[in-house]
Amino acid sequence: MSLLLIVNGTGENWGPEPWLRRFRERLPGRHIEIASDQGPAKHGFRYAAVWKPAPGYLARCNGLEVIFNLGAGVDALLKDATLPDLPLVRVVSEDLTKRMTEYVVMHCLMHHRRQRMLDEAQSRAEWAAKDQWAASAVRVGILGLGELGQDAAEVLVRIGFDVAGWSRTRKSVAGVTSFAGEAELAPFLARTDILVALVPLTSDTEGILNRKLFAGLARDGRLGAPVLINAGRGGLQDEADILACLDDGTLGAATLDVFHEEPLPPSSPFWRHPKVTVTPHNAADSDAEAISDYIVAQIRDLESGQPLRNVVDRKRGY
Amino acid sequence: MSLLLIVNGTGENWGPEPWLRRFRERLPGRHIEIASDQGPAKHGFRYAAVWKPAPGYLARCNGLEVIFNLGAGVDALLKDATLPDLPLVRVVSEDLTKRMTEYVVMHCLMHHRRQRMLDEAQSRAEWAAKDQWAASAVRVGILGLGELGQDAAEVLVRIGFDVAGWSRTRKSVAGVTSFAGEAELAPFLARTDILVALVPLTSDTEGILNRKLFAGLARDGRLGAPVLINAGRGGLQDEADILACLDDGTLGAATLDVFHEEPLPPSSPFWRHPKVTVTPHNAADSDAEAISDYIVAQIRDLESGQPLRNVVDRKRGY
Repeated sequence: MSLLLIVNGTGENWGPEPWLRRFRERLPGRHIEIASDQGPAKHGFRYAAVWKPAPGYLARCNGLEVIFNLGAGVDALLKDATLPDLPLVRVVSEDLTKRMTEYVVMHCLMHHRRQRMLDEAQSRAEWAAKDQWAASAVRVGILGLGELGQDAAEVLVRIGFDVAGWSRTRKSVAGVTSFAGEAELAPFLARTDILVALVPLTSDTEGILNRKLFAGLARDGRLGAPVLINAGRGGLQDEADILACLDDGTLGAATLDVFHEEPLPPSSPFWRHPKVTVTPHNAADSDAEAISDYIVAQIRDLESGQPLRNVVDRKRGY
Repeated sequence: MSLLLIVNGTGENWGPEPWLRRFRERLPGRHIEIASDQGPAKHGFRYAAVWKPAPGYLARCNGLEVIFNLGAGVDALLKDATLPDLPLVRVVSEDLTKRMTEYVVMHCLMHHRRQRMLDEAQSRAEWAAKDQWAASAVRVGILGLGELGQDAAEVLVRIGFDVAGWSRTRKSVAGVTSFAGEAELAPFLARTDILVALVPLTSDTEGILNRKLFAGLARDGRLGAPVLINAGRGGLQDEADILACLDDGTLGAATLDVFHEEPLPPSSPFWRHPKVTVTPHNAADSDAEAISDYIVAQIRDLESGQPLRNVVDRKRGY
């Protein structure tokens, strides 16, 4: 019942050593080891907990039965064509979900309450006009109504926004209009003033945030022009299209937490664009302690005969 | 059953004429008139709906039975020592409550998620470090746990903040620690990282947001230093103390929606203070249609024999 750690992270939270400490604390008496994916393969470990392992490495380790990803998104892992055909578990934790909800709620409110206009007015010592509508006048559309999207939707509904969600299969969330499947994407976009992207990155969703999609968003909303919040993955977005659509008014503003290249290089025009808020992929910065708890709970459940939860469907991509 | 309007507001929402139109639409067949508080007194009207009437005017109008204030705060009205001893009704509307909750939730999140630090980092094209705690690590304290405070508290709890409230009498809100009375103010402050002021302005609360109070806030919180959000009334705050406390670190930041002088004059140091967010008294900009509905509903209820709701207790001051 041994555990192999392959962690390409750094710092006191995401380096391999802190992960080793956390798992040793939680699984005393087990054999737990750090592997370098630049070194020789390690054999005879039942579990692997991984963060950005080098492609090909896991395939060389004999004896593995389950792979735990140390994050929610498995898009990078699934790009490894040699990834062994074992159960692959992603993180679905209340901690991660709640952090994403904080981010989505705050940025929806900042657009709805025109915080950037107010910031501008403050910089000119100008008492802005009060013309402010209620949240019920703003239609939020959540692209991706999974665990994260559903939780954010619940709070947005409680606050008073007019909320819909789109997902592959229809979901039921109180107060949220659920659109499902490709046929319902257009009507979903047509009633959306603030688009929140939370879909997983798969071959189906790569580059989905492009001009064609933005052009389908509502043009008759209270915000003047539709707004994009991408808290999913950089690979979802066509960055040249976002810039062009901001400049020609197809989009009114964008809040971006993720990018094709991270950290976002200083030369990126996003940094200085007056309609863009950049955040450093911290929408749902995972708590390593909470993730460790989650994985250890899954290991214990499995060993007491219960099925693994949140196993990735490789065909679906998440 | 006639209605007199005394409205010192302007514009398409707050001018006297739009109020006349709204009440005539809702109370067809009634005698409704606009009075100028600079002109002669009007007699024989049963109801008055007022917004900032000149002190002394209402006392000169014979026959009034109920005064409806067109807003939630009655502090200005109660300063009129000649105000007739009639039931005075304040606005408690879902619309106003929800708008205040939007404001409080957004600004608590902006402090918790360090949005101003991230704005700064963006202005330098700098990918900030991700070190972000969960909302559960931040203690919000709501000074004033009435209708507004309770609704905001509920959403803050749902998001995950550690929420307490202080009020004159003890309140029961799920998940919220309730402190009550003067004796419990100190322990309430001592566990507060973000102080949200929503108390009504009365002789008891005038100037309560001063150095002595700020010095009692928690010094061991995740935000580094405690934060003030004043969405109540300017009269609650000692503005010189706020500036001095921001400068010496007693306060880490302040978000102010209200001021002694409104509009805030261009010369105010608040505009350009790097730790201050100024908003133009728009936290809960009331919806005139919703207020009209509310007052008409009260009139109809009263005339069908039901008691008035939200009548001001003059001794208490709200």
